[in-house]
Amino acid sequence: MFSTGHYRILSTLSRTGPQSRTDLARALGLSKASVSALVRELIEQRILDERERVFGTGRPSVMLGLREDAASFIGISLQADPAHVVLTDPHGRVCVRRTLPLLSDPDECMSALAQIVHEISAAIPEGAGAPAGIGIVLAGMVSRDRLTCLASATLGWVDVDVSARLSALTGLPVFVENDANALIVGEQLFGDSGDYADFSLVFVSEGIGGAHVIDGKLHRGRHGGAGEMSHSPIAFEGSALPCRCGNRGCLETLASLPAILGAARRAGLGEDIESLVAVAAEGHPEALSILHRAGAALGIALAQTVQMLDPGRIVVMLDPPLVESVFARALRQEMEAHVLRRAGEETEVLVRPLHPDDFASGAASLAAQHFLFGNESL
Amino acid sequence: MFSTGHYRILSTLSRTGPQSRTDLARALGLSKASVSALVRELIEQRILDERERVFGTGRPSVMLGLREDAASFIGISLQADPAHVVLTDPHGRVCVRRTLPLLSDPDECMSALAQIVHEISAAIPEGAGAPAGIGIVLAGMVSRDRLTCLASATLGWVDVDVSARLSALTGLPVFVENDANALIVGEQLFGDSGDYADFSLVFVSEGIGGAHVIDGKLHRGRHGGAGEMSHSPIAFEGSALPCRCGNRGCLETLASLPAILGAARRAGLGEDIESLVAVAAEGHPEALSILHRAGAALGIALAQTVQMLDPGRIVVMLDPPLVESVFARALRQEMEAHVLRRAGEETEVLVRPLHPDDFASGAASLAAQHFLFGNESL
Repeated sequence: MFSTGHYRILSTLSRTGPQSRTDLARALGLSKASVSALVRELIEQRILDERERVFGTGRPSVMLGLREDAASFIGISLQADPAHVVLTDPHGRVCVRRTLPLLSDPDECMSALAQIVHEISAAIPEGAGAPAGIGIVLAGMVSRDRLTCLASATLGWVDVDVSARLSALTGLPVFVENDANALIVGEQLFGDSGDYADFSLVFVSEGIGGAHVIDGKLHRGRHGGAGEMSHSPIAFEGSALPCRCGNRGCLETLASLPAILGAARRAGLGEDIESLVAVAAEGHPEALSILHRAGAALGIALAQTVQMLDPGRIVVMLDPPLVESVFARALRQEMEAHVLRRAGEETEVLVRPLHPDDFASGAASLAAQHFLFGNESL
Repeated sequence: MFSTGHYRILSTLSRTGPQSRTDLARALGLSKASVSALVRELIEQRILDERERVFGTGRPSVMLGLREDAASFIGISLQADPAHVVLTDPHGRVCVRRTLPLLSDPDECMSALAQIVHEISAAIPEGAGAPAGIGIVLAGMVSRDRLTCLASATLGWVDVDVSARLSALTGLPVFVENDANALIVGEQLFGDSGDYADFSLVFVSEGIGGAHVIDGKLHRGRHGGAGEMSHSPIAFEGSALPCRCGNRGCLETLASLPAILGAARRAGLGEDIESLVAVAAEGHPEALSILHRAGAALGIALAQTVQMLDPGRIVVMLDPPLVESVFARALRQEMEAHVLRRAGEETEVLVRPLHPDDFASGAASLAAQHFLFGNESL
């Protein structure tokens, strides 16, 4: 078991990359003797290793780094059918990929997942570490301690103790999180937004998920409902469409994939996003209008995010065909048209393709976060 | 000068009320000997005093509390004309109130403020402590360190080093903050929302200001723009009116006092909010419609806040006649109609009258926060 001191060293090295004992001691406000003792234990446990020497004014310093084979992490996405499973190293590189049918019966689902965890664990690739934990991502609500699925409409689950069940079958710690939260932890830990104290992430699929890192931590809110963009009201008065949640004018009635495809179908245009984008690219006015309106609605929601939170950046993850489409261009333009101008201080918007793997990697990042930060991460 | 240990004791007692040395040691993770030494110094400096004994199972404990005469704080509001100045005790009780004309020339303004600070300091009421600091609130942007006004359209100021100037004239530490941020710090420190890790505050006047406390701290965002509700887009598509900022559909075009009064004037109804509310209360359809639409627009913005941040509560501060009007009722109903339902987990909305004093008290809370928490508060 690690102490707080071990976790502080691991989390610092994971954030900054290799550092010397002297630099670690300075960064953590600890004596060099304490750091050396903690580092010795982490080297003995094959978590850290010594790297190149750096020659400065005094004695050359040995740099310490997180070993790529310190541990590996299993990420499971139950966000959609099929389920995706990955094994990643501590930097988020995917070493193994698997898919399996999504099973909604909790017992059957857990057995199938335990089976695949055993198969992956029995054949860890050369150079990867032993699995140190499992993360699971799903569309729904989870408990603040990341142990229980409180409700998932996709899976039909209510109060399923996911962590206890899968942990009993695999012997590994298991953490469960909703889709947007897992994506943003993945972006913070494995992606390139870890240096931002404040940033936001939005993804568009059946619904529209959002999450916010504030002051370096995932913001959950009072009831765990922070980031629920799908049902944030966008259309006001006349143009508000009814939503499946019972309200009107929710963002997902305008900008989710089903909203876009519904509008396309009503206009007699393609049955999938890819063909709709292709038709729009050829200049079809109605296809352009459908994608433009959906992107603009999401742009309004992003402008509201900028006005409310002023994040350092917003990462927007879209169905791959949308990334280079008029949807993405309308999104940027509508957002920029609706934020208060401040000279030279625009919020960066990164639009990226969303692959099913991304959810599984985000899930793996939950286990990596626990390995590197302990309970401080919650 | 206080050490971190002193500040931890002061901030704990200010949050929780009187506690024994044993309870403080437990809460802060310090030895009882350390706590006793720190407490002794704070008693000698007449910051803390001993209160009633509490009899439990062991030796009776002496409770320690923050003295009401430990210090006092001067709060100055330059938010509107006239400027308001208050002197408060460490719990935010206002002991002195003054007003003076708002002067936009920085030199004249600082001289007039220094003069009034001298007058107040020379006649501190019986039982109040000596002024320990000055807070200033204004409509505009301030630097993250709370020392400089970066820009204020009301005052016509750009990069005015408010803190250095007034501090040189008064010998007291001076902190400057924007209106919404000062109100929420006042609510956190002097009001009854200090127990909420996450809460939001909105006020309606010429513009609409918002601020968010997240994880116990004021959230500023990457460029200090968090909480800028006035220019958050609400009206989408057809109904978007042009705003003075150059965009369209901003919240302030729908729900600010000038927006309400403009609509009333166009309808030939009253020249002030009070008479508009009175006419609406008698059932005048157009007056009802104007107030209803403005309240509903603000309700949409509050629903967006709930969906994005899931705060524990939202404090809404309104022009006094609006508090009991259809504006406030429409605001609540529209908000409730646009948040995702979760059984028994509604976000509390407190609607309160906004008095000019509130800005000055919020300003005083900045000085109190610095006195009690040191630089940790920034």
